[in-house]
Amino acid sequence: MSHLSAGVDLGGTKIQAAIIDGKHAVRGKARVATPTAGGPDAIVEAIVSAVREAADAADVEVAHLGGIGIGAPGAVDAERGVLAQAPNLAGWDAPYPLAQHVEAACGCKVRLGNDVTMAVLGERELGAGSQLQSFAGIWWGTGVGGGIVLDRELWHGRGAAGEVGHMVVRLGGLAEPNGLIGTLEAYAGRRNMEARARAAVAGGRSTLLFDLMAAKGKSQLSSSVWQQALESGDGLAVELIDDAVEALAAAAANLVNVLDLEAIIVGGGLGSRLGQPLADRIARATQPHLFQPALPPRFIVAELGDLGGAIGASLLITEHHGDR
Amino acid sequence: MSHLSAGVDLGGTKIQAAIIDGKHAVRGKARVATPTAGGPDAIVEAIVSAVREAADAADVEVAHLGGIGIGAPGAVDAERGVLAQAPNLAGWDAPYPLAQHVEAACGCKVRLGNDVTMAVLGERELGAGSQLQSFAGIWWGTGVGGGIVLDRELWHGRGAAGEVGHMVVRLGGLAEPNGLIGTLEAYAGRRNMEARARAAVAGGRSTLLFDLMAAKGKSQLSSSVWQQALESGDGLAVELIDDAVEALAAAAANLVNVLDLEAIIVGGGLGSRLGQPLADRIARATQPHLFQPALPPRFIVAELGDLGGAIGASLLITEHHGDR
Repeated sequence: MSHLSAGVDLGGTKIQAAIIDGKHAVRGKARVATPTAGGPDAIVEAIVSAVREAADAADVEVAHLGGIGIGAPGAVDAERGVLAQAPNLAGWDAPYPLAQHVEAACGCKVRLGNDVTMAVLGERELGAGSQLQSFAGIWWGTGVGGGIVLDRELWHGRGAAGEVGHMVVRLGGLAEPNGLIGTLEAYAGRRNMEARARAAVAGGRSTLLFDLMAAKGKSQLSSSVWQQALESGDGLAVELIDDAVEALAAAAANLVNVLDLEAIIVGGGLGSRLGQPLADRIARATQPHLFQPALPPRFIVAELGDLGGAIGASLLITEHHGDR
Repeated sequence: MSHLSAGVDLGGTKIQAAIIDGKHAVRGKARVATPTAGGPDAIVEAIVSAVREAADAADVEVAHLGGIGIGAPGAVDAERGVLAQAPNLAGWDAPYPLAQHVEAACGCKVRLGNDVTMAVLGERELGAGSQLQSFAGIWWGTGVGGGIVLDRELWHGRGAAGEVGHMVVRLGGLAEPNGLIGTLEAYAGRRNMEARARAAVAGGRSTLLFDLMAAKGKSQLSSSVWQQALESGDGLAVELIDDAVEALAAAAANLVNVLDLEAIIVGGGLGSRLGQPLADRIARATQPHLFQPALPPRFIVAELGDLGGAIGASLLITEHHGDR
């Protein structure tokens, strides 16, 4: 048994692995692309190879690790180590015992959690939430996820709490592909923002967004594409980000009016990329919706950045539980 | 010291007092109109007279009661027994030591709490929430208040949690008089529904609402007026209640998507009056907004009815704290 453990952030585009020591410092890291063919078996192989590469960088044998924590994008059965649903992973069509397969390949114990939950727990323990009692994490990326921490405990409800992205903020508004109407994610989810941008272009609107995407060799509007378009003052990008900020502000106000939280931590690909200036804009847009405007929450960007998900996932091994 | 205590529900229109025994049974009750002139002093007199009348009915001396708990409609400093703000009480223009004055007149200890909070606690202990771990109360009346119970504890946040009525459900929608836009209360608060009805009539719309109000000798559209108008199929009443149900459903879905609660308890004047059929309608309207439609919350009408606020307030005396 080593005092080193691994955390893996399994995302729709990339797999980030990190080796973490007993003081939660990063001793090695590696990133590989998420396979888009080959289903769960290919993804297991990619995870194992990312962990091996990170372990090499940290000069440790994988089999000597204290364990591997994996944050996965979907519905997790933590006890059985099964990833049941993962719409963002190609070919993940049925529940699959992910922990068991990685365990067999690596020779050390593997624990599974939800990716956003792991990132929120990472911020609670080691990042922007380390001094906070109660906060909400709003993870602004491809979709909009989150987590609610009350008196330092992650609130689970009956097991499915924290779906901040699916709060209604505009009855009768835009629909998500899943059919939910007027939700935060319909306005602020990067996938839905991209669909709106494509529809606008199809309707004759001009924008730099897709030129920037092509120049970066991307096939999707990544967070860095949005950032550069905003910096260039692109009209369509500004408009769509304005809509997203308005929706994020309404959702943040709802959380604070109901739960009276100390802070909102803004994370996720877009949240981290656009950073504190955007968090400050969301804070200003939230203010008029607060029932107690004299007692606003703080708005803080997630501190652990790109490695936050992996660091958070490593807590599944180093803490007795990761959460309660 | 008696095993009997009193609970008082101080409302904008009426003051309800009840004498409660050690098994939380009602042994006497009285209701007086809330004075609309004379400010806090007149309201203290009215509270004392309601408690006296209820005590007479229960055949007990007021000075022999274990104490009097008061639920007050506004910002309460429970420790100091001060009602700081109460926009629905005429002449309550500054913080006033309500507990101290009632105590002096009655000769027994007095404890103060927020009226909706007391009603939600009453339901948790003795009513619709007695078998639930985690639920939200949505109190649908003149305004829309509420309370969040998590693992049997009322969640306070930094002291101001539970303002479910001020959640945004329609960005860019109707305004409350306080300037908040598109909130649940803007659509479902009885005061705001009445303002919309009056505006519709001023615009030439016909409705039975104000005839029913006059026939009942009321000066406002009370819950019973709304009920009768609905039963008569009045077009404007149906339309405004439809809007209210839609907003209540969005707010309920937001609470469940974020907190994954077992149940929503619907209380308040309109909630209790319109009863389970309306709660069932809200449940059906909530369903399409749920991220996990297979795991809906239950929708239950508050069970303690008109006396719920007073019974809940009596818990300030009989329980050590009333909440955590």
